[in-house]
Amino acid sequence: MRTQVVIIGGGPSGLLLGQLLHRAGIDAVVLERKTRDYVLGRIRAGIIEQGLVRLMEEAGVAGRLHAEGFVHDGTRIAFGGEMFHIDLARLAGAPVTVYGQTEITRDLYDARDAAGGQTIFEAQDVALHGLEGDHPFVTLTAGGQSLRIACDFVAGCDGFHGISRQAIPLSARQEYEKTYPFGWLGILSRTPPVADELIYANSDRGFALCSMRNENLSRYYIQCALSDSPSDWTDDAFWQELRRRLPPEVADGLVTGPSIDKSIAPLRSFVTEPMRWGRLFLCGDAAHIVPPTGAKGLNTAASDVHYLHQGLRQFYEEADPEGIDRYSERALLRVWKAERFSWWFSSLLHVYPHMSGFDRRMQQAEIAFLRDNESQQRAFAENYVGLPY
Amino acid sequence: MRTQVVIIGGGPSGLLLGQLLHRAGIDAVVLERKTRDYVLGRIRAGIIEQGLVRLMEEAGVAGRLHAEGFVHDGTRIAFGGEMFHIDLARLAGAPVTVYGQTEITRDLYDARDAAGGQTIFEAQDVALHGLEGDHPFVTLTAGGQSLRIACDFVAGCDGFHGISRQAIPLSARQEYEKTYPFGWLGILSRTPPVADELIYANSDRGFALCSMRNENLSRYYIQCALSDSPSDWTDDAFWQELRRRLPPEVADGLVTGPSIDKSIAPLRSFVTEPMRWGRLFLCGDAAHIVPPTGAKGLNTAASDVHYLHQGLRQFYEEADPEGIDRYSERALLRVWKAERFSWWFSSLLHVYPHMSGFDRRMQQAEIAFLRDNESQQRAFAENYVGLPY
Repeated sequence: MRTQVVIIGGGPSGLLLGQLLHRAGIDAVVLERKTRDYVLGRIRAGIIEQGLVRLMEEAGVAGRLHAEGFVHDGTRIAFGGEMFHIDLARLAGAPVTVYGQTEITRDLYDARDAAGGQTIFEAQDVALHGLEGDHPFVTLTAGGQSLRIACDFVAGCDGFHGISRQAIPLSARQEYEKTYPFGWLGILSRTPPVADELIYANSDRGFALCSMRNENLSRYYIQCALSDSPSDWTDDAFWQELRRRLPPEVADGLVTGPSIDKSIAPLRSFVTEPMRWGRLFLCGDAAHIVPPTGAKGLNTAASDVHYLHQGLRQFYEEADPEGIDRYSERALLRVWKAERFSWWFSSLLHVYPHMSGFDRRMQQAEIAFLRDNESQQRAFAENYVGLPY
Repeated sequence: MRTQVVIIGGGPSGLLLGQLLHRAGIDAVVLERKTRDYVLGRIRAGIIEQGLVRLMEEAGVAGRLHAEGFVHDGTRIAFGGEMFHIDLARLAGAPVTVYGQTEITRDLYDARDAAGGQTIFEAQDVALHGLEGDHPFVTLTAGGQSLRIACDFVAGCDGFHGISRQAIPLSARQEYEKTYPFGWLGILSRTPPVADELIYANSDRGFALCSMRNENLSRYYIQCALSDSPSDWTDDAFWQELRRRLPPEVADGLVTGPSIDKSIAPLRSFVTEPMRWGRLFLCGDAAHIVPPTGAKGLNTAASDVHYLHQGLRQFYEEADPEGIDRYSERALLRVWKAERFSWWFSSLLHVYPHMSGFDRRMQQAEIAFLRDNESQQRAFAENYVGLPY
């Protein structure tokens, strides 16, 4: 079996890359370790930057996103019992779009089906070979059969725990990591969202986030201890704690209901450099993780996909390797900016163990400066809606 | 003996307050623990915000500042071997003025002499009495005599180690403090400055700052260990270490010479709340300390002086206590902003012990964002030239 690009991982970044390559006449096979239903069952963030919206348009899969997504021209930040609004559209000239990652994945699978793109699900024992030479190939087993796929390039879109990054020798990569001393307890409920925009709340009891999927599907998060388990939290206990972390006028408007999902996620910052090793390119979570504050995970994966598909088109259409040779440098430049913003926004909003009174006042002064200073708000808005590719 | 306001401390904030009150016809006595020569021998920062320039004008003592001070329209930041410029005048609509704190103190003493204002030097055993009632008084000894000064108000301008803050019961104040795990080793030399603007440098070896007093008087600083003593550092060792922390084109242009002053200062952030206790008002370092990065110490003392003299004028001229009643609140609002900026700018530029690779990359990403993003530069510039009173 032979293809031009083997894409490891059938999540949104691998699928988006596959669709963009398909539109450019470049052939790709997608390998996914799980089933399609499993992939579509994963609940993830849903705040989409304009850059990703444009990539979805370029890939010809933005129809439902435009029809069903919610355009948010602003966002709100609460602290010390009060709340202020940041006008993203006015300050940064762009909104964000609320549209679940699961929906993006579904749209991309539908498009891949329509295009007849090949996807191998439940791909096991995937191994990458010959990455340093001109003739790489990938071996795997699927449906009881052993397969070997010859290719020009491998795109590692298989996430933090995937095999792609591990295929780069430790001596050839430099990893940077930070873990945070708390987690996010999130619930999904079939209730109307408490506000028409997201609310990020800094309170003495810890961070809280009011988010949403649509008019009748709300997503709420509270900062929790890493040692907590979802079963420690009844729905009632969750709602009660959430209310305590929100300004009174928000807490009073909260409509509660049974949770249909309840889970705890740890927070991590991670970057590996470089993002290219011979004929292998890392994309998205395979190369970098951000804490979820500010929703830069999928959006940063999208900027990788942008640089990589541009580089591959330049290679195939113009026989010019410049784009793939500079892929790692270009992608990382934007990755570090997203890492900085996600780290800063996390540091701004969470209560850290062993925070001194001075540290806490610095956090409050930083939020007050964001509330009061238009230049600071503009810098925030430019980051939040997504820095240019 | 009786006066309207007793000012504890004959440094620049006490003298500036005294001069502003004098111009408004309000009588004050200044008490200084040391001699005039001692006060004038202290070397301190010399980056003056527009707000302080205007206060000096209002006090009628800005002549020499305008004649001899250097207007800086920008500043430079170096990291990773490169350097960029921040155009303060364009971004924030104002420059900063380089004029030594010692010169300001000298101008204010000259004006005080001309006005016949009373200053008691070598005031010992100063104690504040009756601050919670309507008839406060101050006792002291000077020249072997015991004195008692009745007054309406006391202004505590006597610095971090002064007696004024201590006069407020511990139960009535809340203190916030952060110490930094390094110091600044600074030298003064009769050499031309290496550049016509200040250069703040972040390097793997630690922070460095190229500053100046005039065309032939340079002030340089390097981050050092808290356990270092000035005698550990020969002039040669200092110049060598400074060069290593600067971009090559700066290091190559450095003109060195014998140091005429060499000292180590610790870095501290400190705020006490409230800044008013009965008839006592704290001003400047008596209430708050910032690390020297960004030179907000004297400038923040000046904003206190602004609010306090406005409040006292309102009291004496209009019999309206609103300004003195709200002094603490108004002063602290700006103090916390200066604390935030000084803490942030310090965090941005120094190498901290136990910094992880990720932490270091975040610092570099933050500086790169400041280099590349105009909104972030504008927010920086607005802070650097001084937020409005």
